[in-house]
Amino acid sequence: MIPTLERIRVRYGETDQMGHAYYANYLFWFEQARGAWCRDRGFTYKQLEEMGFFLPVVEAHTRYKGEVKYDDWITVKIWVSEIKRAAIRFDYEVTNESTGKITTEGYTWHVLMGSERKAVSISPDVRQLLDRDPAQFETV
Amino acid sequence: MIPTLERIRVRYGETDQMGHAYYANYLFWFEQARGAWCRDRGFTYKQLEEMGFFLPVVEAHTRYKGEVKYDDWITVKIWVSEIKRAAIRFDYEVTNESTGKITTEGYTWHVLMGSERKAVSISPDVRQLLDRDPAQFETV
Amino acid sequence: MIPTLERIRVRYGETDQMGHAYYANYLFWFEQARGAWCRDRGFTYKQLEEMGFFLPVVEAHTRYKGEVKYDDWITVKIWVSEIKRAAIRFDYEVTNESTGKITTEGYTWHVLMGSERKAVSISPDVRQLLDRDPAQFETV
Amino acid sequence: MIPTLERIRVRYGETDQMGHAYYANYLFWFEQARGAWCRDRGFTYKQLEEMGFFLPVVEAHTRYKGEVKYDDWITVKIWVSEIKRAAIRFDYEVTNESTGKITTEGYTWHVLMGSERKAVSISPDVRQLLDRDPAQFETV
Repeated sequence: MIPTLERIRVRYGETDQMGHAYYANYLFWFEQARGAWCRDRGFTYKQLEEMGFFLPVVEAHTRYKGEVKYDDWITVKIWVSEIKRAAIRFDYEVTNESTGKITTEGYTWHVLMGSERKAVSISPDVRQLLDRDPAQFETV
Repeated sequence: MIPTLERIRVRYGETDQMGHAYYANYLFWFEQARGAWCRDRGFTYKQLEEMGFFLPVVEAHTRYKGEVKYDDWITVKIWVSEIKRAAIRFDYEVTNESTGKITTEGYTWHVLMGSERKAVSISPDVRQLLDRDPAQFETV
Repeated sequence: MIPTLERIRVRYGETDQMGHAYYANYLFWFEQARGAWCRDRGFTYKQLEEMGFFLPVVEAHTRYKGEVKYDDWITVKIWVSEIKRAAIRFDYEVTNESTGKITTEGYTWHVLMGSERKAVSISPDVRQLLDRDPAQFETV
Repeated sequence: MIPTLERIRVRYGETDQMGHAYYANYLFWFEQARGAWCRDRGFTYKQLEEMGFFLPVVEAHTRYKGEVKYDDWITVKIWVSEIKRAAIRFDYEVTNESTGKITTEGYTWHVLMGSERKAVSISPDVRQLLDRDPAQFETV
């Protein structure tokens, strides 16, 4: 499916004493990319929550293949790779712009929860948000 | 007033590429010390929130005088230094146990907010929590 | 292999607006548990770095099955599940003590790097650290 | 002196269960603004470190006057307010773009350290970096 690209500059506070970005920060960046993915399709994750839906992460996987350092620009490429009855999977590819190399790959699985914080089937109106073609929508 | 001591071991992810603890982490440690301060007096900050009260930070100050590194044990000494009609100030002194030196000092001001998220006067029942003598209470 | 248990209390700053611990924080807790795993075997990860070795994470996986909230005590159970020529895998099981349930499972793969920051085979002296029986060593 | 403006979008992981940005995150944002301040003047903080200089924070102060929520755009206005022999002070003003209000004010004091990690006087070549007029330089 059509990916979204989100550029992020690495903060000093995201490094550790080994001199690279600490491994947990990629999950923050993945989340930022999910927000950008929604915006590219004309809605925000915040609006989804205001509609009474949540997409908590139920599984996360990250493979670290290269280095990311302070002040590097990274690009997170994100796309939906699978949609099940009540679950959705995002895939991620992080490129370090200073080297041009893919440094990290990962995915996250999310379940759709309703306002009672229970898993619910993806309804047609939520499904049409997920299926949107970003070319048809203004980024918000 | 009577202080509480909270021991914390520095995480790898709390360091930065300079090799020390990143400066923002002290505010997390101050917060952990506030939780311990409550517990020493027989209640938890969580219970305070369940009673409909919040103590958001309205001012924070930190003076960094020395180094704290990965795996160091630190002791955060915390005490209430001032109570106003609707506000309370905590002071902090962080000692690096590996050197015995005070490495950081700070304070935070908090306002008491009620369930409508507006500042409220400190009521007698909240005041008695703040005035408790830890010697009279079991740590929870 | 013999596991190590590490208890951690969830910080307020580790929650998010959904009211649970934010998903990236588990990777900080896994790291803290790795530190405890070393200490249980009479050495520290810091000493390993001082010997010129690093164990960067090359893969991380987490499955979130339940909730962890502010002020909950969690226990991270950690054990080595596999050792290859130059790599080591830790497995994790996080129990929320307030419910008694396993809320999160995960693993991390690490490669051993030498002082030139290249992968190296696990030497006999490093291997004997990894194979230590915690019953034979004082926790440091 | 001439300020620099840095726009930042609040991450989900930067909120806490009270529904606002957790107070420690402002120090990450201040740091990001310092990086932008350098870039506006044609150099990067990374280059400063490569020249053997560090600007560790020795004091930080923050006053929280309003709310910042998930997905809000904030603008951090940063400027140098004082330069001493071996120290420099940055001031910050954070505006929440969704309300137009200044929500947070703060400052940080930094000492200049040389490669031996000792405080050193600000040399003429470092001083000319700090005194640069951003209008005369390309943002890097």
